[in-house]
Amino acid sequence: MIVRDAPSLPQLLFAIRGSIIVQTAPKILFFTLYAAAILWIDRSLLPLPQVSIAAMGIFGIALSLFLGFRNNAAYDRWWEARKLWGGMIADVRSLARELLVFLGAVPARARVLKTVAAFAHLHRGWLRQSDARAEALRADPAAADFAARRNPPDAALRQIAEVLRAEAEAGRLSDIGRRALSERLASLSLAQAGCERIASSPLPFVYSLLVLRTSYLYCALLPFALIDTAGWFAPLVAAVVAYVFFGLSAVTDELEHPFRDVINGLPLDAMCRVIEIAVAEALDEPAPEPLQPVDGVLS
Amino acid sequence: MIVRDAPSLPQLLFAIRGSIIVQTAPKILFFTLYAAAILWIDRSLLPLPQVSIAAMGIFGIALSLFLGFRNNAAYDRWWEARKLWGGMIADVRSLARELLVFLGAVPARARVLKTVAAFAHLHRGWLRQSDARAEALRADPAAADFAARRNPPDAALRQIAEVLRAEAEAGRLSDIGRRALSERLASLSLAQAGCERIASSPLPFVYSLLVLRTSYLYCALLPFALIDTAGWFAPLVAAVVAYVFFGLSAVTDELEHPFRDVINGLPLDAMCRVIEIAVAEALDEPAPEPLQPVDGVLS
Amino acid sequence: MIVRDAPSLPQLLFAIRGSIIVQTAPKILFFTLYAAAILWIDRSLLPLPQVSIAAMGIFGIALSLFLGFRNNAAYDRWWEARKLWGGMIADVRSLARELLVFLGAVPARARVLKTVAAFAHLHRGWLRQSDARAEALRADPAAADFAARRNPPDAALRQIAEVLRAEAEAGRLSDIGRRALSERLASLSLAQAGCERIASSPLPFVYSLLVLRTSYLYCALLPFALIDTAGWFAPLVAAVVAYVFFGLSAVTDELEHPFRDVINGLPLDAMCRVIEIAVAEALDEPAPEPLQPVDGVLS
Amino acid sequence: MIVRDAPSLPQLLFAIRGSIIVQTAPKILFFTLYAAAILWIDRSLLPLPQVSIAAMGIFGIALSLFLGFRNNAAYDRWWEARKLWGGMIADVRSLARELLVFLGAVPARARVLKTVAAFAHLHRGWLRQSDARAEALRADPAAADFAARRNPPDAALRQIAEVLRAEAEAGRLSDIGRRALSERLASLSLAQAGCERIASSPLPFVYSLLVLRTSYLYCALLPFALIDTAGWFAPLVAAVVAYVFFGLSAVTDELEHPFRDVINGLPLDAMCRVIEIAVAEALDEPAPEPLQPVDGVLS
Amino acid sequence: MIVRDAPSLPQLLFAIRGSIIVQTAPKILFFTLYAAAILWIDRSLLPLPQVSIAAMGIFGIALSLFLGFRNNAAYDRWWEARKLWGGMIADVRSLARELLVFLGAVPARARVLKTVAAFAHLHRGWLRQSDARAEALRADPAAADFAARRNPPDAALRQIAEVLRAEAEAGRLSDIGRRALSERLASLSLAQAGCERIASSPLPFVYSLLVLRTSYLYCALLPFALIDTAGWFAPLVAAVVAYVFFGLSAVTDELEHPFRDVINGLPLDAMCRVIEIAVAEALDEPAPEPLQPVDGVLS
Repeated sequence: MIVRDAPSLPQLLFAIRGSIIVQTAPKILFFTLYAAAILWIDRSLLPLPQVSIAAMGIFGIALSLFLGFRNNAAYDRWWEARKLWGGMIADVRSLARELLVFLGAVPARARVLKTVAAFAHLHRGWLRQSDARAEALRADPAAADFAARRNPPDAALRQIAEVLRAEAEAGRLSDIGRRALSERLASLSLAQAGCERIASSPLPFVYSLLVLRTSYLYCALLPFALIDTAGWFAPLVAAVVAYVFFGLSAVTDELEHPFRDVINGLPLDAMCRVIEIAVAEALDEPAPEPLQPVDGVLS
Repeated sequence: MIVRDAPSLPQLLFAIRGSIIVQTAPKILFFTLYAAAILWIDRSLLPLPQVSIAAMGIFGIALSLFLGFRNNAAYDRWWEARKLWGGMIADVRSLARELLVFLGAVPARARVLKTVAAFAHLHRGWLRQSDARAEALRADPAAADFAARRNPPDAALRQIAEVLRAEAEAGRLSDIGRRALSERLASLSLAQAGCERIASSPLPFVYSLLVLRTSYLYCALLPFALIDTAGWFAPLVAAVVAYVFFGLSAVTDELEHPFRDVINGLPLDAMCRVIEIAVAEALDEPAPEPLQPVDGVLS
Repeated sequence: MIVRDAPSLPQLLFAIRGSIIVQTAPKILFFTLYAAAILWIDRSLLPLPQVSIAAMGIFGIALSLFLGFRNNAAYDRWWEARKLWGGMIADVRSLARELLVFLGAVPARARVLKTVAAFAHLHRGWLRQSDARAEALRADPAAADFAARRNPPDAALRQIAEVLRAEAEAGRLSDIGRRALSERLASLSLAQAGCERIASSPLPFVYSLLVLRTSYLYCALLPFALIDTAGWFAPLVAAVVAYVFFGLSAVTDELEHPFRDVINGLPLDAMCRVIEIAVAEALDEPAPEPLQPVDGVLS
Repeated sequence: MIVRDAPSLPQLLFAIRGSIIVQTAPKILFFTLYAAAILWIDRSLLPLPQVSIAAMGIFGIALSLFLGFRNNAAYDRWWEARKLWGGMIADVRSLARELLVFLGAVPARARVLKTVAAFAHLHRGWLRQSDARAEALRADPAAADFAARRNPPDAALRQIAEVLRAEAEAGRLSDIGRRALSERLASLSLAQAGCERIASSPLPFVYSLLVLRTSYLYCALLPFALIDTAGWFAPLVAAVVAYVFFGLSAVTDELEHPFRDVINGLPLDAMCRVIEIAVAEALDEPAPEPLQPVDGVLS
Repeated sequence: MIVRDAPSLPQLLFAIRGSIIVQTAPKILFFTLYAAAILWIDRSLLPLPQVSIAAMGIFGIALSLFLGFRNNAAYDRWWEARKLWGGMIADVRSLARELLVFLGAVPARARVLKTVAAFAHLHRGWLRQSDARAEALRADPAAADFAARRNPPDAALRQIAEVLRAEAEAGRLSDIGRRALSERLASLSLAQAGCERIASSPLPFVYSLLVLRTSYLYCALLPFALIDTAGWFAPLVAAVVAYVFFGLSAVTDELEHPFRDVINGLPLDAMCRVIEIAVAEALDEPAPEPLQPVDGVLS
């Protein structure tokens, strides 16, 4: 995620990093040259047939609506993913507090909190399809037991349930306490399944097809409408239109998959660190530093 | 559901599978030829009356807004359905954990978890109006008892309630435990009723009528506006407009019924498998493999 | 509610039932003739002043936005009402399960479940301002006691609370059980109040005024813009515009009041039957058949 | 709130009451005359410069979008406020039931229910910045104690907490009962704070500025675009545009503050009466009549 | 936050304070002069190439849609932030009530409530990145202990958990009471994490880039379309367009960060005061005055 505080105007206008200019530049360039070629042919070789700009306008507005819909849906996925992680952070803090209230500062509390930190790392690993076992083991040496299961984060939570069971059987945890703590775990489980849902259910593929194909058709037809109405500005207008359509498409592609390790993705590493800090503080252990953005990007 | 990771540009532009080109091709073809015929008559036989492109533009934007509304509503149904199943997956995992916390690893726990897997299959069968009794029986041999009831998934949950009652009467399940577990069942019940709602309440029929009729009228009038403004591009523009309008309509029809076994439907089979995996892992039994997409489609 | 599975194209294009053509036909006819008259006067008697189609276009898009807003709000009300009833169905099933878990299969359980079926009928009667006492009495012979109160469904729930109190005093219902069951009643109460809210708070009247007046003004001005731009198509274009504007308005009016016994209203009868089935199945009594659509309409 | 059942067409077209015509008439009149003046100057004195209608169109659509956004936000506030009150009504009914379940029909129950009716009145008074102490005292003679506090409705709820504490100390209310009842109070508290939020946080002022200024600019420029394109219709078109823009603005202003005692405000009096009825019915006392609309307006 | 009750028309039209005119004036001025220069060159020096206003229209509508999306998202953040604080206010009041119900008016209750007031100040300090330790210490002299932790508000809540633990161990707080109170803390924790989420996750940077760059391009191209269509109105139209585009952008920038101490930010100081009042009233101590707006601005 890009974290930039009040960038200056030149930064905003000419920033490369974080803009989607890199992915879209080839397409923009292509359609600019294409528009120039059409214009040159019409002026120098033979008059080409034309499409009225009004027809393109209607088409363009319809396309904007569909681009807008896809963009909206992608942004909602991104923001929901962030909400789920925010809820998990709150759950970890509440778990720490509730362990204190119902169990007291016993060893089992530390064990549970360390496992929950490992849970966060394993969950991140699952979402990014990367290997987070090292960090999980650093957070909780006992993570080896559950990190090899089919669904490691779920196994981590089940591991905590075992601890609760043991404490209850030892008479250290009341029935009400058991209930309170296992509801906290259920809340983590729900957030986990929510993230899995976003990660495993992309936007319906057919939208991408519909929008992309229509964008290409649009850009291919546009110069025929610009010959008369934009004259020598035609290549510029074609470039702007390509920038807006393909740019928004590229943004949508990034936000649609909020857990990927891309520049506009969510800072899962930094949020796992926030969880580690919450655990360390609750255990009165020295807390690690929060992750800092590198080049304005928080990973 | 189509699961495709970063398809290449040619794939995106020329994919047949997953696009709605198959359903919409006849209409697109028809209106292309129709536009060509109108153009030919105007140029060769007799000048036809014309509609201004501006008038068609207004009409087109209004139509886009209504198509957009229907599309939005259909996508919301699809996504809500996915959320409900995601919540059910989390509930099953939490049920497994809570049975451990409140009952321990007793036989009743295994019985309940197997019944809940059968519940998932019966629920899927109800939603798809297909017969899922075989899978339900595989998951839980006792499923024969409740699979024949009017609402088999509800009967499965009631079956679990019987087990809880018996455990409570045998003194193995505390009052608080009873409450925690029966709330988990209520949460499954709520998700079940939510899915039933989506499956049994289609979008108001009148929207389909309104949108479809207006689309046909639009495509029938359009060529009279294109004669002058698009010239020889007229058939192409007509084809593009038909592609966008009927394409979006077809997408909407698929997403509106998220449980149907179509290419853009939800992968209920795969999600039932996820639930089976969660149950197997919780019981320390060998878990089946997750379902893999076949030709990029997860069923 | 219209329940039609995949109607054929001719059905879609020419269906009368379920379309809003009946309500809107007079207006469409009027504005078609009006446009024809204007056109005839301009061509045969005296040239009339004209409005540019571009001006009408802007106006038309603004109007579409407001129509779209109202339509959205009405659909949201309809869908929320359906959600509330779906939640009530789930609550009844959960109540049946929870009575089993906390009370067992005692007579009080049957009494409560029958009262809850009467509750559903009385609630339906309140919402439709029709007399549902007969069905309520059929579901629960004791319904005569509470069906005469000011708010009969609320009185039904209070009746259940009396039963819970008596069971608790007789020592058959624990404190936790009392809490679980009274929360289920609270959930039904919340859904009931939600339905009352939708039934008693229509969309602000001023929107109807604003939209309707503007639609009439629009249709009255439109022919002056069509003389030049649509020529002999003018009456057709006027008819289409009237169809879209007044059609959408009529849909909005029906969906805005989801509980009315109209063709696009919610199938309250069928949903009360679903509740009766859930109660009968829970009590192991013979369950009635689900209601079937009559002529494709579920009441 | 205006409660009108299916008004006839003439009523809809010519209703004054409930329309925003009164507030907007001066502006509409002004801009109609202004357009007529511009037209007259251009035709009779000297040709004026012109703006193309297309330019105004773009501007107009942008303005519609912003008006639409503000309208949406205001309607959401209005509807959320209604939802909060609907939730409070349900909470009062559930409180009555839960008091029965956990306390029985003891005097403390009546005391609590009377205080909760006073709470509703005091809350209404706070929201409308009017004095509701008389009604509060009528509902609960003990209201004098808390009606003078800084936040009277909150003090009313605290008063109920005192009663619960006393009952618990007297051994008449179990721990679980205490919890159930104090959660009901928390739910009322949340609704109260939600209403306070809506009442004290208007839509950001800057939107009003932006929209209003742009509307004035638009109406001032519009006649220069209408001279050629609407001819003698220009004053009429200007009037319609002013009606739509300022009318929607006026609606937004009313809905933005849903608690004000205006014609489109929420019927707080009637809802307080619904709460009084719920309390009376629960206590088996004679219930007052529901408030009836006066001239179609429910206050 | 600007709190102005029914400003008069001149105030609305000419208010400087609260409008975003200050931030946007330079840009508006620049593009006005730029349009005038282009016009002058075209009329006096050499005819410039032109873009058709229709082309700019399409572009403009697309841009409006994206501006509208960003504005919507920013407003949603602002309103969600307000909701979270509103929920915290309700939580504090409910905490005060629940402490009374479960603990009684013991010293621990006062201690907890004072700590929760300190929590509010520390949370505000965290969100505004300002030092709120002085106010926190004033509210709770014991705040020094936790104000120095990494996450001071979370440490404040943990501090309360310690008190609950101690009370429970001393036998003054039942298990159910412990549960009720620690859930209240969890609710505060969730609101805190929600605010942190909004504060630390800005809208994706790429939207700002896309919108701003397109706005500049638009304003740079516009005069070439206005030469013919707006004539001497061209600079005025350019100014209006710049006002709308950059004005909305500036609003979005303010609302996107609802916790900043700017004129359209949330009144965190006033809401902390509301919490202090709730605490004082609950403890029967003299309550401070609510904060009053200064020059119509509540900080």
